[in-house]
Formats: sequence, C-alpha cells, structure tokens
Amino acid sequence: MEINEKIVKLLSEIKSKKPLVHNITNYVTTNDCANIILAIGGSPVMADAVEEVEDMVNIASTLVINIGTLNSRTVEAMLLAGKKANKNGIPVILDPVGVGATPFRKEVALKLIKEIDFSIIRGNMAEIKVLSGIDAISKGVDSEESSEDGKEVARNLARALKTVVAITGVIDFISDGERVISIENGHEMLTKVTGTGCMSTCLIGVYAGVSKDYLIAAIAGVMTMGIAGEKAFETLTKAGGNGSFKVSLMDNIYNFSAEDIMKRGKINEL
Amino acid sequence: MEINEKIVKLLSEIKSKKPLVHNITNYVTTNDCANIILAIGGSPVMADAVEEVEDMVNIASTLVINIGTLNSRTVEAMLLAGKKANKNGIPVILDPVGVGATPFRKEVALKLIKEIDFSIIRGNMAEIKVLSGIDAISKGVDSEESSEDGKEVARNLARALKTVVAITGVIDFISDGERVISIENGHEMLTKVTGTGCMSTCLIGVYAGVSKDYLIAAIAGVMTMGIAGEKAFETLTKAGGNGSFKVSLMDNIYNFSAEDIMKRGKINEL
Amino acid sequence: MEINEKIVKLLSEIKSKKPLVHNITNYVTTNDCANIILAIGGSPVMADAVEEVEDMVNIASTLVINIGTLNSRTVEAMLLAGKKANKNGIPVILDPVGVGATPFRKEVALKLIKEIDFSIIRGNMAEIKVLSGIDAISKGVDSEESSEDGKEVARNLARALKTVVAITGVIDFISDGERVISIENGHEMLTKVTGTGCMSTCLIGVYAGVSKDYLIAAIAGVMTMGIAGEKAFETLTKAGGNGSFKVSLMDNIYNFSAEDIMKRGKINEL
Repeated sequence: MEINEKIVKLLSEIKSKKPLVHNITNYVTTNDCANIILAIGGSPVMADAVEEVEDMVNIASTLVINIGTLNSRTVEAMLLAGKKANKNGIPVILDPVGVGATPFRKEVALKLIKEIDFSIIRGNMAEIKVLSGIDAISKGVDSEESSEDGKEVARNLARALKTVVAITGVIDFISDGERVISIENGHEMLTKVTGTGCMSTCLIGVYAGVSKDYLIAAIAGVMTMGIAGEKAFETLTKAGGNGSFKVSLMDNIYNFSAEDIMKRGKINEL
Repeated sequence: MEINEKIVKLLSEIKSKKPLVHNITNYVTTNDCANIILAIGGSPVMADAVEEVEDMVNIASTLVINIGTLNSRTVEAMLLAGKKANKNGIPVILDPVGVGATPFRKEVALKLIKEIDFSIIRGNMAEIKVLSGIDAISKGVDSEESSEDGKEVARNLARALKTVVAITGVIDFISDGERVISIENGHEMLTKVTGTGCMSTCLIGVYAGVSKDYLIAAIAGVMTMGIAGEKAFETLTKAGGNGSFKVSLMDNIYNFSAEDIMKRGKINEL
Repeated sequence: MEINEKIVKLLSEIKSKKPLVHNITNYVTTNDCANIILAIGGSPVMADAVEEVEDMVNIASTLVINIGTLNSRTVEAMLLAGKKANKNGIPVILDPVGVGATPFRKEVALKLIKEIDFSIIRGNMAEIKVLSGIDAISKGVDSEESSEDGKEVARNLARALKTVVAITGVIDFISDGERVISIENGHEMLTKVTGTGCMSTCLIGVYAGVSKDYLIAAIAGVMTMGIAGEKAFETLTKAGGNGSFKVSLMDNIYNFSAEDIMKRGKINEL
C-alpha cells in the first residue's frame, strides 16, 4: 500500500475510533489545539496537574507534550505522564517549542528525551538542530533556518534517539532513522498564525492514536496541516488576513478527506 | 408568566445591568468564555490568585468555578472564592469538567460541593452521574452516556444537594429537586467545538447574575446556547466546519433576542 | 515629519525587522495577543518561568508585562524580566489590567512600577487613575469612567513616572509628560471583544521594538487598533457580532497600511 493510501485508511479509523489525545501543553495555543483535534475527529483532553496526569494517561490513546510555556510544575507533570505513557505502551509525542531560545528549555527538553521514550518529535529546523547538539539560530519560538540539510538532520536524530523525527518548514522532512520522506505541501500563510506548529503536533498525535506505524502517523499529521493550509489560502479574499485564514484552516481540517490526501499529497521518499 | 417570558425579561435585564461574572476556570476555553459573557451582555473577569479571589468576589454578581485544568493552586482559590461568594449571597455555579476522568477531579469536585453551597451545577450526563455516586463511563472531558434517565438523575442530585442541576446533552434536563424541565434545542455541531459546555455554564452565570430564580437562570443559559447553536448551523456553508461554526455561534449569542426565545425555545415541564 | 508620517515609517520597519516581543501575560487573551503581533509583522514569544524569563529578554526587542491573571509565580517572573530588560536597554511596556479591582493587583502594579522603569504604560481611565493615586470606580477589568480629564491624568502620571502614559477610551490620551496627543479613532464594538486592550498594548510593544521614540510608538499602537476597529465594523453584516468582528479586526491589522494611517488617523496635539 502506498503511503497516501495508508493515510486515507488512518483518517477513516480516526473518525470511527475518536482517539483520546491527552495534552500537556502551553496556554497560548491550547484552544486551537483542542479544536483541531476535534476537527480531525479525535477527542482532546488538557490536564497538567501532577495529581492527575498519570490517571489521565491511563484512559488516553496518545500523550502530546509541548514545552511552549513550561514551568517547574508542568515539567514535573510531563515527566510523570511521559513515563506512565511509556509503561502503558501508548505513543508519546514531543513538541520542543523554542528549545533553543533559553538554556532552561534546552535543559528540560534534553531531560524529557533522556527519561521518556518519545514515539515522534516534531519541530522546526532550529529546534531539531538544538536537540541534535548542532548550533542553531533561534529567534524566540520561530525559526529562520534554511531546510537544505533537513534530510540528514532528521535521519541522524531519529537514529540517535530511536524515534521518528519530523522537521517542518517550507519542505518537511520526516524520518524513522532509516527512511526519509519529504512533504512539499503547505503555505507561507501558516507562519502568520500562532500555533500551527503545535496544531501539527496534535494532528500527529491523533493519527498516532490509531496506528503503531509512527512514521506514517507523523507524515499524515504534517501533510494534513499542509494541505489544509493550501486550501485555506486559496479561498482567502483580498481583505483576508491571519484572522480569517485561521478560521478557514480549522474548517479545512474539519472537512479533510481521502480525496485531499490522494489528489494533493506531495510526498517523496528521498 | 411562562418560563420563556421570564427569560425574555432576564435577557433585557442583562443588557441594562451588565452583571460582572468572576470566573475561576481552565486555560483551554477561557477566551471563548470571556467573549460569550460579553456577547450576551455581561462583563467577564478571570482571576485565580489566592491573594485576590475574595476581593474579586466582593465586586462580582456571580462566581463560576470550572475544574477543566485544575491544579492545587487554583483549587485553593476556588475554595476561598466559593466560601466568600456564599457569605456575600451571590450565586456560585459549578462546571465539573471531566470529573469522572481521574480520582483527583472527583475528589476535588466532592470537596468543592461539601464546602461550598452551589446555586447551579451544569455538566454532561457522565459528570452529573459521577457527582451522584453512580458509575459512569467517562472518556476524558466528553461524555457518551445516553440521556434516557436524565429526569431522575437531575432531580435526585438537585434534591440531595439542595441546588439546581442542569444536565446538557441531546436533550437537556434541568431540575431544582422538585420541578424537572427538558429542553430540546441544540445541535450536534456544538460537540465539535471545545468549550461549548464551559460557555453554557458562563451563560448560566450571567443569567444568575440578574435573578435569584436559579432554575430559570439555568434553563435560560442552556437554551440560549442551544438556540444559538441551531442558528449557527443553519448558516453553515458546505465548506464550513467547526472554525466558522464557532464564529457564528458567538455572533448568534451577540444577537440573541426575545424573538429567538419565544419562537424557538423548546421547553417542556416533565 | 508629521506624527502620521513617522508611524508609516515605523510600520515599514516592523515588516523588515520583525521585532521579537516577549510577553508575560494573562491566559485569557494570549492567543489573540500572539496573533496580533504576527498580524502587524512582529514575532511573539510568551514565557513566564522564572528559570528562563531573563534569557528570553536577552533575545527580545521588547518586553510586555500584563497583569490580567497574575499570580505569585508570574509576578516574580515579571520582576526578574523587567529588571533584565532595563539593564539591556530594551523597552518595557505595562498593561495594568483591572488594577483597581483588588488590593493585590494594586500592590503588585505599584511594586512593578517602583522596581522597573517602564517605557510605556497603557490602560483605561480607571486603571491609570488607580496608578495615579486617584479614586476610581473599577468594575472588574472594564472601565466605565468618563475621559473628560484624560489630558491632565495622562500628563501628570507620565511626568511623575518619567514614562509615556496611554489612556484608551472613546478618546485616547497619550503623553510623555510634556506633550499630550489625543486620538479619536476606534469603535464601541472594540469593547465587546475581550482583550482589545491587551492587544493594543502588544501593538505598542511591536512599534516600540523598532523605535526609541516611545511617545510615537504608543500613539502608533493605539491608533492602529482604533483604525482597524473602525474598518472591521464597516464590514460587519447584520448577522455579525463580536465573533466575526474579532476575525475581521485581526484581518485589518494584517492588512494595515500607510494609506490607513494617512487617510484615517485622527491625531490631535492638545
């Protein structure tokens, strides 16, 4: 079966299984994250109290950890939840938001990676480079790195950590340490809305909730966001901006279809 | 006066009195909660620091407590604020989000109920069953329980706690322990947007800010959300999804009118 | 150069320099704040952990402090970040949300003002009066004060604190302690969306990130929001409300242009 056919199958399974995605995340983009999980067909729950995260993991299909507005209390919750998810055998996804921006973020991200087995890590080029021990220019939570060497960076980190790594940018690179897939969907307008990275990670989390093939789940989540971004831009009026684009983006995830995947998906195995 | 006529009167009073609704709530849906309070004509304030919640209660017309992303710090604030609101004689509304999902949520909700006199409790069937001591299937913060026995569950808990209980679902059941009212407004699309439950609770809070008849306030809040949901769905285009539906939902609350209440309200006394 | 011509120049510089605006802010309006910073052309980052705020300040062009949902943990972060920003010579903007609502807010705001040199303080009339030691009626986070004495209040506080003070309302008053500028842009509909004040403060922060003339930056931010509000209202349909208005507001900031500034700006030197 081709990759896009596998994704069509997963999309259908999401609609019937409605996987519960437990998010320990930032307070900037969490509403959009919850709505995008609902839009694709999953069920979101946000909980970060140390008293309850392990119990929430027990009923979840996926755990998504996002360090966007981390603090000492939530970092403790991330560690507890991540270890429990590993014990339970459910996928754990990491979004290392702005990991190069401060030493604290880097220290926390490295600790999370050391103590938790992540199924998938999704970030922009600067973030993935920081996790790889490569010097990277980080400007807050957004990246201005080129993606020329994406293939190598994704594969090497995936291999080192025995995980799937997804680097999102103009071209996306996704690798499980052996195979490397590039995706050429997406639109620059996605960089004008806060949290499209976080939302991509959530979509990956939903797909991973119905498949143990995490390479495919990562490809599916990234491609879904890319195609929805393209479609949202196509209907943007001249008076439109990041406000109406965000609304349309959500609508396009809500109506995302097998036809979108088969006709628009630009996946290449490198 | 009929129930719907009473609600028309309350809607008018909200516009003139602009009741201040103090929310101690989650960080997922709080922006939508603030905007929906503004849309109907109230004034929202969100504050959860233990150093100030009692002072905020002193200037508020209603206190809404929502446990969606509770933690030990905010639970302490909830207890302080709730007791102060009881002392001041203003209504206190509880939204026991996902109370069956973890033992911590259940323990906190039961403690809140023990130490605070709630005027109204609004939840889905699973949440209200958990508070009633009935075994319920909880899947995160969303419920898949049927609402067949809603009448009995609502009345029994209302009676036991001497409060008003509102169970929202396909059919809503609202009881003060004696009377039981059902509402058949609403649309399934409301389940595709995160926080429509939280927002309903906020609307209840606004109505309760202008009326001591908490049964009517609870009916009013739930019905307002249901009718706005129906109207928002009616204008949804084929390309529309939960993104544009949410925008339209807010617009319909903003323009909610006496005519909507009189012509569309589907209230039955059981 | 006239004030509006200066603003045109700053707008152009924002687009090329993309200033990084570090926000320590509330969890109610933070998503809209991040998106409005992106809309105008800046780059937002939200971070409030004491372990990292000073490092984040080191890479930022502006620091915005907003006390909307303050707590003891975030207040400590505000103090650390503000002092670091002062040391680094980058502008620090204060939004004293609801400062008159509770003694805790007032105490914190006065402590912040004592320990940090703010470049610009933006609030409504009630908030600025509280900071000025004048009795003011505060109703939660919204103000019902008249703005008759805005000129004096703005100038006196600016002079006393050696800062720029912006009072936003029906007419806005902005002063550096010597000059006082009024702006008559804006629309009442802006009061029906939560966070338009916070968003104005963020826009000020973006402008201040490309100019050391903080009086002009404050005028620019306030006027940008006012004009975008007018334009958003002009396209509002009869069925529209605060939902679609907010989307359009963001779009209008995204498309904000030199022509808008030159043709619509209603700036007067008093």
